[in-house]
Amino acid sequence: MFQSAEIGNAIDKKAYKAEAPEVREALLAMQERMADRGLAVCVVIGGVEGAGKSETLNVLLEWMDARGLQTHALRDPTDEERDRPHMWRFWRMLPPKGRMGIFLGTWYAEPMADLFDGAPRSQVDQTLDRIIDFERMLHAENTLVIKVWLHLSKAAQQARLKELGGDPDRRWRVTAADRLYRKHYDRIREVAEHVLRRTGTGDAPWHVVEGTDPRYRQLTVAKLVLKSVSERLDQLDALAGRPRPEPDRPRPAPVNILNRLDLSAKLKRAEYEKRLVKLQAKLARLTRKLHRRGRSMVLAFEGPDAGGKGGAIRRLITAMDARDYQVVAIAAPTDEERAHPYLWRFWRHLPGRGRVTIFDRSWYGRVLVERVEGFCRPEEWRRAYAEINAFEQQLVDAGTIVVKFYLSVSADEQLRRFEDRQQTPYKAHKINAEDWRNREKWDAYEAAACEMIEKTSSEAAPWVLVEANDKLWARVKVLTAVTDRLEELL
Amino acid sequence: MFQSAEIGNAIDKKAYKAEAPEVREALLAMQERMADRGLAVCVVIGGVEGAGKSETLNVLLEWMDARGLQTHALRDPTDEERDRPHMWRFWRMLPPKGRMGIFLGTWYAEPMADLFDGAPRSQVDQTLDRIIDFERMLHAENTLVIKVWLHLSKAAQQARLKELGGDPDRRWRVTAADRLYRKHYDRIREVAEHVLRRTGTGDAPWHVVEGTDPRYRQLTVAKLVLKSVSERLDQLDALAGRPRPEPDRPRPAPVNILNRLDLSAKLKRAEYEKRLVKLQAKLARLTRKLHRRGRSMVLAFEGPDAGGKGGAIRRLITAMDARDYQVVAIAAPTDEERAHPYLWRFWRHLPGRGRVTIFDRSWYGRVLVERVEGFCRPEEWRRAYAEINAFEQQLVDAGTIVVKFYLSVSADEQLRRFEDRQQTPYKAHKINAEDWRNREKWDAYEAAACEMIEKTSSEAAPWVLVEANDKLWARVKVLTAVTDRLEELL
Repeated sequence: MFQSAEIGNAIDKKAYKAEAPEVREALLAMQERMADRGLAVCVVIGGVEGAGKSETLNVLLEWMDARGLQTHALRDPTDEERDRPHMWRFWRMLPPKGRMGIFLGTWYAEPMADLFDGAPRSQVDQTLDRIIDFERMLHAENTLVIKVWLHLSKAAQQARLKELGGDPDRRWRVTAADRLYRKHYDRIREVAEHVLRRTGTGDAPWHVVEGTDPRYRQLTVAKLVLKSVSERLDQLDALAGRPRPEPDRPRPAPVNILNRLDLSAKLKRAEYEKRLVKLQAKLARLTRKLHRRGRSMVLAFEGPDAGGKGGAIRRLITAMDARDYQVVAIAAPTDEERAHPYLWRFWRHLPGRGRVTIFDRSWYGRVLVERVEGFCRPEEWRRAYAEINAFEQQLVDAGTIVVKFYLSVSADEQLRRFEDRQQTPYKAHKINAEDWRNREKWDAYEAAACEMIEKTSSEAAPWVLVEANDKLWARVKVLTAVTDRLEELL
Repeated sequence: MFQSAEIGNAIDKKAYKAEAPEVREALLAMQERMADRGLAVCVVIGGVEGAGKSETLNVLLEWMDARGLQTHALRDPTDEERDRPHMWRFWRMLPPKGRMGIFLGTWYAEPMADLFDGAPRSQVDQTLDRIIDFERMLHAENTLVIKVWLHLSKAAQQARLKELGGDPDRRWRVTAADRLYRKHYDRIREVAEHVLRRTGTGDAPWHVVEGTDPRYRQLTVAKLVLKSVSERLDQLDALAGRPRPEPDRPRPAPVNILNRLDLSAKLKRAEYEKRLVKLQAKLARLTRKLHRRGRSMVLAFEGPDAGGKGGAIRRLITAMDARDYQVVAIAAPTDEERAHPYLWRFWRHLPGRGRVTIFDRSWYGRVLVERVEGFCRPEEWRRAYAEINAFEQQLVDAGTIVVKFYLSVSADEQLRRFEDRQQTPYKAHKINAEDWRNREKWDAYEAAACEMIEKTSSEAAPWVLVEANDKLWARVKVLTAVTDRLEELL
């Protein structure tokens, strides 16, 4: 893996001076194309100590238009980061469309350190597999990942650090970490070799670059970025003429998990009032316990319009300490949200330890409305099931309790509620022409929902199907499911 | 202050049922107007324990369209928040244009707690004065602040807490804090009275509402929100017809702080190389010390196009640990940025402890380009000096070292550099038609810069004027100023 980066690759000054201006010019033109096409790029710079990671970053900064660039070098995670799934800190750093993020230290830092410290390889490999999924998702979502590993042979590293250490004005470039890592060259090389081999994929290959000669290193990395981005832009250009995606209108099976529900289930008001008070008291107690235990919870609500999501959510939050929950109503994304992979807008609202986030509509929009209305391409909603499962798995792995509710009403009941809304002035805002149009696609939405529930139900992040023709029944069922889940997992 | 909120205000069930639907309808119509006009609203709900703060929040959530709402209830600050100026956490919560944020616990929590704990009133009053400035700025920047204080008489509070405590299913609503605060009713009342009187301004008055009767409380708060927002919307409607602001083209004084600079100052290359290496070594040492000490630094760069800002910044960052600095190049704001007060986009990039943020162009754009090009109104850039001074003072108070650089080049030198850029392909992106047009407004920019420097120079956040016709001189001067300042303050 590293052999061809130990042969003393170098470029002489003259050749460098001849070539550098062209590369700079081409990089700038490339940035304009990136902005036009809305391509985001992550440049990951890893490598051994002394191989020139910071210097490479600096040259890229110098050569490119700083307004299209952002740099990220990692320190220890902050507590907001530590309080959330591991990848949260990287999601918040992702460059938006048209821009480039250059990373020193990334999602690879932790598995490499674990492996170095002797963690079992099988365990580290699982982390690496999840990284592969993450990078595949980025690639599919128009974020190109370019991974560069700056390598030095053992002798070259010794020479480099000695040279720096001998000059009092440059000695500061050698940190304590450098001196530590120098001692472990062989072990680090072994770790890097495994990680690079395992995570070098077709979409996001590793490029090993010899770091000994600064001119060679700089020019090689710059040209690598240029080539990778240009190729991806060419691919996108070729795709640009594609027609808009067609809406997908699946037909539901005659008997399915949704129409099998007994929507006549109901509760008398007196019984409801009695149970509501008890359940809210229980929920209050359990969310305080959640807080004390430093766990977190994510609840997602889906279902047809007028299914009673808002009402059910209000019955939950009145029992919680207002400092502990956040309700996120999903409407049209902002342009910052649109400029990132579709899961980004949900990652940004994930709760910290002790907190609850309730999503009124969620990431499942991808496989419901976006699918049925043709807002995304078939390959996009098809891969979304796996992406969503991976997302929820990360939440669960981080100690978050995840419950998803589908509030099911019959078409007749929805019609009754729509008519009621239209006749009640303060409810009229809740209904518009689109809601009526969506009714015509009732079957397609039902079929899409069935497929979604089947493909994304898991022990760890279950779907709770709620018979919601009777609002009182539905609210009690939601409260019961939340409290049961909390009792079980706390 | 509280007398009229202790007289047993109440509304009977029938009157409530008659009025509530109208109010709900009006609130929803109001939200639509807010979205159309781009008015942001902060509703601050304070009050004594047991007066129904959470319940009021819940009713507002129920009555309004959740997609235009966000709620914020404070816990202890996170470490990312603690690492930055006190107001940072509130800036990050500000609702964007067209939306409403409802706050339980706000910027008032800390000064009230301080006063309660016996901090000198004069010291707390300074904090309160800064809050007044903040709210005034919000008001001017199209963010309406509505402050509600829910009050209970001592007897009413005792009765309320006793009632809750006696019901096993509702007892959870009484927290340990409630029980504690109950003991100190008189002291809290005294503190609240002082704070409310001091911070009740014309733009953001306090509204005291009696909290004893839930129906009265809910209806009163809802109508208060309705009235305040509607009045502000009417004002904005009246202003909507205004012509766009005129560009402001001030003329510089014949002799001024900028044209008095000796732009012939220069440095030989050999001397430059020698000093650069020494200064970078020193800067590396000092930024490591900054990190150890948990201090932070903000550097801002302004000056004419082609003044050498980027080159000077690169000489700084090559001496720093990439994990410690962030360069923020200020270009066109995103729509999320545009939807907030103009300082919001700078607040979001403030460094945490141990870190450095370098702004390549900054908040001073408000009194330079926005003023000269007519992108903002005269009253907006005129008040910006005070707002900027207040902003920087908050940084300094939080232990941040602030240095601002103005890199001054002559019109002739700028022309030379523009021509050079046009002839060098990889520099051509740095110049466009607008840069040439801006040259025609050279005098206006010079005069605006002189006024800016005079109005915003302070001991704590000084301007360093840099003779920048010679790039080498300029870079050394910048490095020297940064290292001197660090040496002085660390």
